[in-house]
Amino acid sequence: MFDFELLKESKKTEARLTKITTSHGSIETPIFMPVGTQATVKAMSSRELKEINSQIILANTYHLYLRPGDELIKKAGGLHDFMSWDLPILTDSGGFQVFSLSDMREIKEEGVYFRSHLDGSKHFISPEKSMQIQKNLGSDIVMAFDECPPYPAEKSYVEKSLNRTLRWAERSKKEMENSEQALFGIIQGGVYPELRKKSVKEMTKLNFPGYSIGGVSVGEPKEEIYKILDYTTPIMPKDKPRYLMGVGTPEDLLEGVYYGIDMFDCVMPTRIARHGQVFTAEGRLTVRNATYAEDFNPLDPDCDCYVCQNYSRAYIRHLIKRNEILGVRLTSYHNLYFMLKFSEKIRKAIKEDSFLDFREEFYQKYKLK
Amino acid sequence: MFDFELLKESKKTEARLTKITTSHGSIETPIFMPVGTQATVKAMSSRELKEINSQIILANTYHLYLRPGDELIKKAGGLHDFMSWDLPILTDSGGFQVFSLSDMREIKEEGVYFRSHLDGSKHFISPEKSMQIQKNLGSDIVMAFDECPPYPAEKSYVEKSLNRTLRWAERSKKEMENSEQALFGIIQGGVYPELRKKSVKEMTKLNFPGYSIGGVSVGEPKEEIYKILDYTTPIMPKDKPRYLMGVGTPEDLLEGVYYGIDMFDCVMPTRIARHGQVFTAEGRLTVRNATYAEDFNPLDPDCDCYVCQNYSRAYIRHLIKRNEILGVRLTSYHNLYFMLKFSEKIRKAIKEDSFLDFREEFYQKYKLK
Repeated sequence: MFDFELLKESKKTEARLTKITTSHGSIETPIFMPVGTQATVKAMSSRELKEINSQIILANTYHLYLRPGDELIKKAGGLHDFMSWDLPILTDSGGFQVFSLSDMREIKEEGVYFRSHLDGSKHFISPEKSMQIQKNLGSDIVMAFDECPPYPAEKSYVEKSLNRTLRWAERSKKEMENSEQALFGIIQGGVYPELRKKSVKEMTKLNFPGYSIGGVSVGEPKEEIYKILDYTTPIMPKDKPRYLMGVGTPEDLLEGVYYGIDMFDCVMPTRIARHGQVFTAEGRLTVRNATYAEDFNPLDPDCDCYVCQNYSRAYIRHLIKRNEILGVRLTSYHNLYFMLKFSEKIRKAIKEDSFLDFREEFYQKYKLK
Repeated sequence: MFDFELLKESKKTEARLTKITTSHGSIETPIFMPVGTQATVKAMSSRELKEINSQIILANTYHLYLRPGDELIKKAGGLHDFMSWDLPILTDSGGFQVFSLSDMREIKEEGVYFRSHLDGSKHFISPEKSMQIQKNLGSDIVMAFDECPPYPAEKSYVEKSLNRTLRWAERSKKEMENSEQALFGIIQGGVYPELRKKSVKEMTKLNFPGYSIGGVSVGEPKEEIYKILDYTTPIMPKDKPRYLMGVGTPEDLLEGVYYGIDMFDCVMPTRIARHGQVFTAEGRLTVRNATYAEDFNPLDPDCDCYVCQNYSRAYIRHLIKRNEILGVRLTSYHNLYFMLKFSEKIRKAIKEDSFLDFREEFYQKYKLK
């Protein structure tokens, strides 16, 4: 099952409050989705993810197809059972990862031939194959198989690729007929306004239950993403969820929401955590640095998470310097908590018609990198 | 504060049930103590340690002295505050680690000169210094500074070393005068019965609140340890706790308890966990092996821990093969739970006068490696 409710629209911005219902429960948006690439959100257990109020997590089709294999996950009863997560799961189509392999893949009309980044073995993923994998995974929200052009890319190439993505979306839809899983179409078009417009126009004709904005976070400057949103989201259907793929710093969330995005995902919070860097209300802090060797304050004095209530910067720095697993566990937990709490604050601000004030207060305190 | 109660003695063996009280709470023995070498039990959070009923944990003086430094830990309010653990902590004296450095250290009557295994820097630890470090750490139970001879070692060397350990025990005691921390004397003597006897006789004259058996788990066959216990524990004071240092497989616990040991510690449960190996009621299982790729059973079908209630062998194998932190978290959690639950079962068996039956049943099911 899949249901979408538009609960509230902001008056001065495109920001909106929505509720998405799947067979594994409901999601309130705007929401940040932690990424569990290999059927695990790095360093986190499923009950910790629930404790920090993760409403939905993401998993990667490409990685799970290669290892441990989608057939194995199907035997386990699907991804929910396999990883012990009973709330919603969204899977990508594998397209983004396959296209990132650059010289190890060949794109044809029928699909993409590529070699595994793990062992060089040969593989083929088509729109149909991507849907079959995602069916085996049993995620609640699945993505159509798209081509994600690099940045920068010639307009003519982006247009050709966009047209193929449309044909692939139709094939994805056909393969997903009669499925309980909700298939999202992906808007492409690079940094070209008329191509994004064309993509929205043609993709929405297929009447998907939701739409993603793809082809971002591929190396372009942040301003380009915001520009794309500025001319793309207003023409997207209001009565469908909007998901900005692979984007999700705190400032990205604020800007995305401002332009009307509902869903975000990014590996960044757990990736920087592994390098000893954490979010605070004042900006990012590299707790690994010698400055914090004798700092007995919590990571973020404004934070009420389990980590900030129990551990100090000095202790976490010690753990990270000594390569102790608990160090990365604590920074990962805190960073994801920060993002989910931040999503919650954004929802509250929209509810109370104070989103613009909230955004301004954030920038006054949070030092951008 | 420190208090010891002998609650029950087994009739047919030396096994006993005791209660040790420290200023951070009470411990029921026989007990396995998880090892938190660098102020963290590897891969575990403090609340997980509580959840699996860890009554007391161990930390290493040598490692903490080097990094992050005992002075820093003192500033943090001691080890309990630093690592967010409010139950009892036992620290070793640093002796074992220093003597393991072999060619990087020189033993003199005043103490040991050595080079750090981390950066080669020069250091000196004496009995007084070891006590000062342990005071800074603020552990509840501290160990006297001893010399731990290697195995094999000539009797004449072991005797010389034993005498030095006695002189160092006196100096340790003097340095710890007026401390709230409970100082344990360490019984040495290698594999020589009369030296062990001499050590017990002389060490108990110093009237420590507890005694450890050291100089084991240094490369000798298991049978040697059990022989040592057979002739050593019966002559140790009944009204003091007995701690067998660095020993702690399931079978070691059973045999140690049989011979009258109360406390055990070992890095083994977390170390094998990092290599994808776990305890089950039937013996050790290497979940990393291909055999378990599609095995959707829990690690140990007889186990009621969080891991076994929620995750399968196939999933944990996948995580470990992919070097995902959660994999090691789950195997570590399960192995420590196994050891603590096993300690609890041993206590119950002693209470119910069925320890010998319990021991026999264990060996019938558990395949030794």
